[in-house]
Amino acid sequence: MPKKIVIIGAVALGPKAACRARRLDPEAEITVVDRDSIISYGGCGIPYYVSGDIAEVKELCSTVYHAVRDPEFFRQYKRVNVLTRTEAISIDRKAKTVLIKSLETGKESELEYDSLVFATGSTPFVPPVPGHDLQGVFTVSNLHKATLIKDKIAAGEIDNAVVVGGGAIGLEMAEALTALWGIKTTVVEMCDHVLPQAFGPGLARMVENHLRENDVDVMSSTRLLEISGDADGRVAGVKTDKGEIPCQLVIFGVGARPNTQIGQEAGLAVGPWGGLLVDARMRTSDPSIYAGGDCCEVRNLITGGSSYLPLGSLANRQGRVIGTNVAGGNERFEGAVGTFCLKAFELGVAKAGLTLKQARDAGFDAEEGMVVMADRAHFFPGNELMFMSLIADRKTRRVLGIEAVGPQGDAVKARVDAVAVLLPHKPDLDDISNLEVGYAPPYASAMDIVNAAGNALKNIMDGFSDPIDPVTFLEMLEDENNVFLDVRAEKVSRKMQAIYGDRWICLPQDDLPARWEELPRDKRLHVFCNTGLRSYESQLFLREKGFTDLKNIAGGYATARLLKPGIDEK
Amino acid sequence: MPKKIVIIGAVALGPKAACRARRLDPEAEITVVDRDSIISYGGCGIPYYVSGDIAEVKELCSTVYHAVRDPEFFRQYKRVNVLTRTEAISIDRKAKTVLIKSLETGKESELEYDSLVFATGSTPFVPPVPGHDLQGVFTVSNLHKATLIKDKIAAGEIDNAVVVGGGAIGLEMAEALTALWGIKTTVVEMCDHVLPQAFGPGLARMVENHLRENDVDVMSSTRLLEISGDADGRVAGVKTDKGEIPCQLVIFGVGARPNTQIGQEAGLAVGPWGGLLVDARMRTSDPSIYAGGDCCEVRNLITGGSSYLPLGSLANRQGRVIGTNVAGGNERFEGAVGTFCLKAFELGVAKAGLTLKQARDAGFDAEEGMVVMADRAHFFPGNELMFMSLIADRKTRRVLGIEAVGPQGDAVKARVDAVAVLLPHKPDLDDISNLEVGYAPPYASAMDIVNAAGNALKNIMDGFSDPIDPVTFLEMLEDENNVFLDVRAEKVSRKMQAIYGDRWICLPQDDLPARWEELPRDKRLHVFCNTGLRSYESQLFLREKGFTDLKNIAGGYATARLLKPGIDEK
Repeated sequence: MPKKIVIIGAVALGPKAACRARRLDPEAEITVVDRDSIISYGGCGIPYYVSGDIAEVKELCSTVYHAVRDPEFFRQYKRVNVLTRTEAISIDRKAKTVLIKSLETGKESELEYDSLVFATGSTPFVPPVPGHDLQGVFTVSNLHKATLIKDKIAAGEIDNAVVVGGGAIGLEMAEALTALWGIKTTVVEMCDHVLPQAFGPGLARMVENHLRENDVDVMSSTRLLEISGDADGRVAGVKTDKGEIPCQLVIFGVGARPNTQIGQEAGLAVGPWGGLLVDARMRTSDPSIYAGGDCCEVRNLITGGSSYLPLGSLANRQGRVIGTNVAGGNERFEGAVGTFCLKAFELGVAKAGLTLKQARDAGFDAEEGMVVMADRAHFFPGNELMFMSLIADRKTRRVLGIEAVGPQGDAVKARVDAVAVLLPHKPDLDDISNLEVGYAPPYASAMDIVNAAGNALKNIMDGFSDPIDPVTFLEMLEDENNVFLDVRAEKVSRKMQAIYGDRWICLPQDDLPARWEELPRDKRLHVFCNTGLRSYESQLFLREKGFTDLKNIAGGYATARLLKPGIDEK
Repeated sequence: MPKKIVIIGAVALGPKAACRARRLDPEAEITVVDRDSIISYGGCGIPYYVSGDIAEVKELCSTVYHAVRDPEFFRQYKRVNVLTRTEAISIDRKAKTVLIKSLETGKESELEYDSLVFATGSTPFVPPVPGHDLQGVFTVSNLHKATLIKDKIAAGEIDNAVVVGGGAIGLEMAEALTALWGIKTTVVEMCDHVLPQAFGPGLARMVENHLRENDVDVMSSTRLLEISGDADGRVAGVKTDKGEIPCQLVIFGVGARPNTQIGQEAGLAVGPWGGLLVDARMRTSDPSIYAGGDCCEVRNLITGGSSYLPLGSLANRQGRVIGTNVAGGNERFEGAVGTFCLKAFELGVAKAGLTLKQARDAGFDAEEGMVVMADRAHFFPGNELMFMSLIADRKTRRVLGIEAVGPQGDAVKARVDAVAVLLPHKPDLDDISNLEVGYAPPYASAMDIVNAAGNALKNIMDGFSDPIDPVTFLEMLEDENNVFLDVRAEKVSRKMQAIYGDRWICLPQDDLPARWEELPRDKRLHVFCNTGLRSYESQLFLREKGFTDLKNIAGGYATARLLKPGIDEK
């Protein structure tokens, strides 16, 4: 008897699992059902479709060779039966059947299964604020919504837009609206910085300011109270606790909820985030039922707990694992560390693992080290500064997370990926110091920034460096009691002195050996330079001269000016 | 008593170890000796200095902040005593002394040590061919030589140059001579392809052809017989077994030999490659004597044997480990997998681990899988094809090596680094299929090329794909008995048919379901497409229809046209 495989959901994981199962089991009867008429598409491309980088919807649901992945494609090439506009209503686990209903005809029928796969995805969350159902309020959930948004824009109906939520989708949509269409866009984020799930405040605020430089308004620590409409029921503006913003379009990007209803009704176990629980073979609590992608939780390979990581990349990789296993094979998906990247205008943004806060919340004695360094040999033309934070546990020195931003996105992603893939192996800081990434001057430094980040954090833990993080530095600037020692060239350090007066001491590193005795010994000195390297070296020098109360401003001016543009302008 | 630390060599590892030791041990007496007057420089930048990308020598021996790292710099900032123009003559291990001699005054003296560090580097090998000592014959060994070469070029003395050796330094020098100076340059390589230590023939020949497109002549499988001179003892040309090449400049890049003479005279153990043997703490066979960088061998973390990997990146990382250990600490350097990258004109080139041949020579039952795929989402503008080979062991499925080339170098390096850092952990192919690299359409595909490479090699080992590698394909093309099935669009496949006649069958993948019965069943079909993806899918389709003798041309047309430019032009 041929095996019967039923898959609910045909966006990313469903088709992947179906094709893989077909390859391994030529006899199986494979059926995929989906409510939508458009299937098998790259949902992560939606912002680029809205921006116009991608001209047509069909590019997102085509193969590399421009074959449209429609039901006919799957029937002919894959011998997979895809039922579109078809909803799965309920599951009878005892009888091993799924009740389905055609959304075209309303007709219900039953599908038998030996193996059932949940690839039901997630639904964007819409907070129940007044006005959330007005015309012009959208989520970025599928290609139909994307087309509606794009049509509205193309029709010239939108001058101002508000994006609620400063996560990846929110920022990508804000860029899409602003960059090509010139729509005045405001991002409203409840937390005190954008990308709160992925980044600490330091690097995240660099991203925020980069958005602002590119004409996106970012309002963090701001709560949406209400969406107001006009007489025709169309969006006219939003009210926040920081004021009102007129707009004709509101896009919600405040996270998604796993689609688990029929799974839960059938008694499948769900986890703390509301997603289906699966084992390493991607089986739910019913061994005949598999689940993957946005509808399920994933084991966090750093904390050991359960995480909710709705990422297209995980869905694709899990799809192959499920396809193998429903065909009788035995592949495993052990979990994830949450590797993530994003292009924000001209800035590459990437991270993996835990933020400092997440690490501390998870019970680690976590510390963060920041480095600012050229993304290739500093003598090679075209090098750009990269900003990197590494997070590790003090006790075990185990590395828990990495964050990086910089103008050359591929290079930023390269460093983060290299640490990310190692995180499941519980690397310690020595492993990062010696991380064997490739070296050639056009692409890296001999001691690469990622090695330097490992060394910097070791120096902190070993007591050689006592840094102040760049966000705290900006707060400290305002306190009249704090004294700073700027070891950059006087030409630039004098500009800060002109603002902060006597408590901003200018003494270039080159002059320290001759002039260190001029420095006050009765006050803590906060040493400052361009990136944090010379301030670290100067601090070591002064320590040897008997100075005991020294702090090093991590990231230096290069970071501070991105967090507070115009910091040295009166 | 303060500890006495003596370091022989002040290029990369020596200064690094000295500064690290100073940081950990403020009391130690640290002395570094070097024969040269220029110290602490980025030797890997020499080709970029010769090309003019870097204007002045001092940029290569400056800190990021333009402080020149001369003996005064080390004395003032690091309290490290650097003796330049000073040679180490011999070591008395019993008395723990080094006999040194000033190259300025000829005066000899003794340095006592508690810990001694060999940072003596390597010497470029000059094969003893007739004429190797003519004026105009160079190695790329230090900044003096680099300046001599550059001065000669700038004086207009060079119209033609020959670079002997197609390794990294040879190719970088060939580019430097050609790109900025317009010198007609020929690379003479004894092996049958360039980069023979790092790459298999497939990707290496892409690099070769890219060099040719950029006006560098590459003669592989060519042996240098003699360098001929003019009446004034200057280079006039080289004789090879493939003919004579007139030139005024010859640069040797045929590898380097570790500088171990005084170490060997003192009885320190050397390994099979002639380098000093060290343990994981970087101690030689005498526990008071450390060694690192180009003068020593390194444990190969894939084979477990000893390797010689003279790479600046390893030297820098080892320098820190040695600095810690001579100061009483305990850091380890476990070995290396040979991560390597190179920019060759507009092509990024990277690898890690073993080539297929090296893997088989080391006793593995190795297999190679090749993929050609967009380096970011195929629907994202600006994506470029990347070419990747993955090498693994059939029995254990352990991954042994990776090679990649592509026009976006940072992206090429990103993928190779992500696999490289995992190689010491003995990943299997499933680990690569699920490798958690970041995903966003501007930077990657949801199923990234590196994941695809893992899947492709699994498909080969599982019997789903039976590929012909691209180099073998080109040989097979010439054999009249071989029949090919081209599943690309007819517009392009007909061009190949026009050359190869009836044995080149054109049947686009889209038409296969309707027309597969037209295909001959009595002959092996070699299925061909643009990258190897559609040929793989078509092969699976035909197999289901009962075809049993099918081969898949790995890398397809995209690869073949780079290996044999004009392949479809009559």
